Amino acid sequence: MIGRLNHVAIAVRDLEKATAVYRDTLGAKVTPPSVQAAHGVTVVFIELPNTKIELLEPLGADSPIGKFLDKNPDGGIHHVCYEVDDIIAARDQLKAQGARVLGDGEPKIGAHDKPVLFLHPKDFCGTLVELEQA
Amino acid sequence: MIGRLNHVAIAVRDLEKATAVYRDTLGAKVTPPSVQAAHGVTVVFIELPNTKIELLEPLGADSPIGKFLDKNPDGGIHHVCYEVDDIIAARDQLKAQGARVLGDGEPKIGAHDKPVLFLHPKDFCGTLVELEQA
Repeated sequence: MIGRLNHVAIAVRDLEKATAVYRDTLGAKVTPPSVQAAHGVTVVFIELPNTKIELLEPLGADSPIGKFLDKNPDGGIHHVCYEVDDIIAARDQLKAQGARVLGDGEPKIGAHDKPVLFLHPKDFCGTLVELEQA
Repeated sequence: MIGRLNHVAIAVRDLEKATAVYRDTLGAKVTPPSVQAAHGVTVVFIELPNTKIELLEPLGADSPIGKFLDKNPDGGIHHVCYEVDDIIAARDQLKAQGARVLGDGEPKIGAHDKPVLFLHPKDFCGTLVELEQA
């Protein structure tokens, strides 16, 4: 079912500083910051040859990564995102196997303007998993 | 400096159960378990089209992932591994910029029989970073 690793997301307190770590210290290619108001984050992508790292900074008081950063003040790996060919078919198959889909279970439009869903970490090795339609 | 994302490592308590999640629930291709006695882990690789997920189960009482699993009993994302062309040049360049290399700073032979180093999470957005010679 799952295909490519679309990205690994890292939550950070200071996007400018984190971007500098990847651009200057690690010598990677970075995109300009992009405000994702609907998701409560500002995003920078690190473009690696085979995938992306997504740096997430909280936007607003209700940002979904606020609590994560309270627990992980230095930042940390927040989720992994796998591509699927058909997100509705994938969701229905996972639910039939007992896996929990977060929120209302309906795909939202993600940072790449494609439908995404999040799966419960307790069902996936303690890892928050995002699925994105390829 | 950094090239491909070689893998994302996920620490788990029960490798057989975690392998079943990726193989059966997520429908991914998995390798047989491989004992890495020198690193205190047993490893299964999930082979995605563009990169790998490395599932790590503690091996022995002194496993380096034992403490991580005490703090994260459900498991969790443990580190990311980036490829570099020349691990010694990369290490020296990072150290010159003030980044901390873990252990004695000398590369060890990793799970792919290639030299690897680990970098201090506090210098890299709260993320444990492994470098592997490509």
